[in-house]
This record gives sequence, C-alpha cells and structure tokens, in this order.
Amino acid sequence: MTYCLGIKIDDGLVFCSDSRTNAGADQVSAFSKAHQFSIPGERHLVLLSAGNLATTQAVVDTIHRDLREDAKVTINKLNYLADIADYVGQLSLQTQQKYAPTGEEAGFNAEATFILGGQIRHDDPELYLVYPEGNHIRASNQHPFLQIGETKYGKPILDRIIEHSTPWETAMRCALVSMDSTIRSNATVGPPIELIFLRRDALNKTQVYYRYEQDSVYLMELREAWNEAVVAAFTSLPGPVFEDP
Amino acid sequence: MTYCLGIKIDDGLVFCSDSRTNAGADQVSAFSKAHQFSIPGERHLVLLSAGNLATTQAVVDTIHRDLREDAKVTINKLNYLADIADYVGQLSLQTQQKYAPTGEEAGFNAEATFILGGQIRHDDPELYLVYPEGNHIRASNQHPFLQIGETKYGKPILDRIIEHSTPWETAMRCALVSMDSTIRSNATVGPPIELIFLRRDALNKTQVYYRYEQDSVYLMELREAWNEAVVAAFTSLPGPVFEDP
Repeated sequence: MTYCLGIKIDDGLVFCSDSRTNAGADQVSAFSKAHQFSIPGERHLVLLSAGNLATTQAVVDTIHRDLREDAKVTINKLNYLADIADYVGQLSLQTQQKYAPTGEEAGFNAEATFILGGQIRHDDPELYLVYPEGNHIRASNQHPFLQIGETKYGKPILDRIIEHSTPWETAMRCALVSMDSTIRSNATVGPPIELIFLRRDALNKTQVYYRYEQDSVYLMELREAWNEAVVAAFTSLPGPVFEDP
Repeated sequence: MTYCLGIKIDDGLVFCSDSRTNAGADQVSAFSKAHQFSIPGERHLVLLSAGNLATTQAVVDTIHRDLREDAKVTINKLNYLADIADYVGQLSLQTQQKYAPTGEEAGFNAEATFILGGQIRHDDPELYLVYPEGNHIRASNQHPFLQIGETKYGKPILDRIIEHSTPWETAMRCALVSMDSTIRSNATVGPPIELIFLRRDALNKTQVYYRYEQDSVYLMELREAWNEAVVAAFTSLPGPVFEDP
C-alpha cells in the first residue's frame, strides 16, 4: 500500500509521500513515489503515485520517454495542468488495459491513482487527483487537500488543521503528522518519507525538498512529541460523568 | 456505513456504536446497531452489527425467534462465547446465501459483520469479531479492541490510548473520541451514539448504558474540547526546521 498527500494552500503546494511498496508480506521494498518534472522558470510539476507498482512505473517511464523522443504530446508541451492530468490518466488507462486481461480472474489489480500538482508560468498552482479510470478532480479552497492510497488514518488531522490560508510550514508539519498516524496504524506504509514544497511563482528557482529515513532524528522526535501531545490532549478532556455502576 | 467498536479491558467490556444507516444518499435513517441479550446473574451479551441492514436485522430477529420458540440452539443455551459467535456467523451466512444470488450481478452486497462480547457465568469476559464468512477472531490483551464498519478514521487514537489495563472510564471516553473522529471525517456515520459498559462479573445486575443524540450537550462539548486540544497539541509540536526557500 501507499500513502500520498497533496495540499493546495495560498503559499503554494505541499506534497508528502511514503516509499513502501509491497506485493505480499515477502516482497516489501522502498521506492520513491514522488516524481518531479521541471522547466526551470517556466513550470514545475510533482506527480505522486499509488497502486500497482508496475503500472505507476510504466506511466512515469512513458512520460520520460515521450520527453526524450520529443513526442507530439509531452508533459512539457501541454499548457494546462488539466491537460497533463488527462495525459497521465490516459497513459495509466493504456497500461492497465494492456495487462489487466491476463490476470483479471486471478484477483490481479493493475489500477493506479495519481496526485498531480504544480504551476505553469504564472497561472495559479493547481492540484489534481487522477483516478484509475483516467478522469480527475481538482482541489479547491473548500477542499484544499487530496489523498491517495491508505488515506483514512491520516485524514482526521488534515480535516482539523488544513485550510487554504494555512502557512506552508504548518501544512508541511501537518502532512508529516498525517503520515505518522498512517504509519502507526498501517504496516504497509513506511519511510523514507518525502516532503516537497512548491512555493507559488517560484517555478523551481527555489526548491524545498526533505527526505526522512527510517532513523531520521526529526521524524522520531516528531512522532514522540505528537504521541505525548495527543495523549495529554486526551487526558485533558472534560471529565465525562459516568456514574460508577 | 457504520462504525462499531468493542474494547476488552481488565475492568470488563466497552461497546460503542453509531446509528446511521444509508442505502444511497436518499435513504438515511437511524437504527440502533447495539443489541443486548441477558439472563440476569448468569450471562450478559452485546451484539453490534455492521453491513447490510436487511441481513443484520434478519440475524437479530432469528436470534429472538429461536429464543421465543425455545429452539434446540439458542443464544441462552450455548455455554461458550465462541459457540455463540459461531451461531451468529451461521445465521449471517444463511441469510446472505438466501438473498445473494438474486442481486449479485447488480452489485448487491448482503454481507454483514458483527462484534459479539459478553460474559457467561464467571468465565472471563470475551470479545469476538464475526466475519461475513461466518468465522471469527477474538480480542486479546495484546490487541484489546475490535472494530467493524468505517474503522480507519477512529483507529489512531485507540492505538495510542487503549491497553488492557486502561480504566473503564478512560476506555469509554476514548471510544467516544474515536467515534467523533469518524463522524467528522465520514458523513455516513452519525448519532445517536450508544455506549455500553459491562463490568466484569456484574452479569447485568448493574448496567452502564448511555445514548447520545445529535444535540447531546456532552457530545458537543467533547467534540469541541477534543478539537481544541488536538489543534493545541499540534501547535505545540517542536518547530520543524524548514529553511525558507
């Protein structure tokens, strides 16, 4: 499984992803699920992936191959993020359709889901979720974050903290806390954790990228501090008046 | 959807369930999902249900009918909680098999899942989860809680707080907080909330039962206090050292 998260705030876009992949309990590995594409000063895009690893790798490889062969449609030629979301959706569908029939009856699932975010020139930064069916939805001010993979454990803290006006440092910390809750409750999500911030209008002239390994001191401190703070918060709750039976 | 939770602690057993059922967005109703069966002084059992409402109602009705008709096997005649879990599983399977073939191709799903807990005489209190397939697992000291329905949003706080030695008032408060996180993040889970505590060896001579309606003052206070406490906990986290890009 996987947990990836994109947040669209006034400051720009925050992305967070884990790196654990598994095909059964015997095949657990670490693969980065965060892919970046850039024309410095013109556009910067981040693509996060969840689902079948073969499908997501094939999609990312095809994006690179299209760029290298200067295909008619490439991630650098399309001028709207919505069109790029569509392009990713089509590549994903094509890959799924190629392999699905062979394994369908054996419970094989080639589906993949993507979060695509970025900015092209001085258009507003945008954030999309691309479904396995190839269609997509967009984050809005009312719904400023999108999640893929193992999304539920980490959603409550996002629901409480994230608004479009949330400062970027807060959004990044919240992304890490959301990731930590997921890792704690689900064994198929794990470090290294990648954390990216695309500042509005920076267009990759500056880049904020963090990678936290399993033994990251900050990640361990954050985990411990958050656990202590949540337990203290819980203990501070107003005494419920349960009569002793 | 539904969210039900059972906790097995040294003090006894805690149960919490929501009451929202829905069959599409137009058919949202409130049904209690907590069913109690008792021979005062001899046994007390709680059954929580999730899944297809027709299936869960049919199972509970059959349990009552078997009692009324003094069938060969009833919930009062079986002397081990494991056997009662098996009995519930078989009733569930029979109901599912009766209706499944008619709707299978239309995406119809007759599956149901149950949490069964209680105490028979002075045997240890036990807590079971009965799967749609009719088989079951048991809570242990290492894994002292079981959840059914929309389980993920409310799991992180249980992972942090609940141990077998947790006092019953704390376990009840934690169950409500877990329920609140679920309600906040998922529109298909909602009040009234039922909360039950079976004290070890009380065997229904005393009974702790709370029902919180949508407009419950305590539920609203708890929700607000918990939200404030979590946001404060989050704000208190050690400053991450993100360099400004």
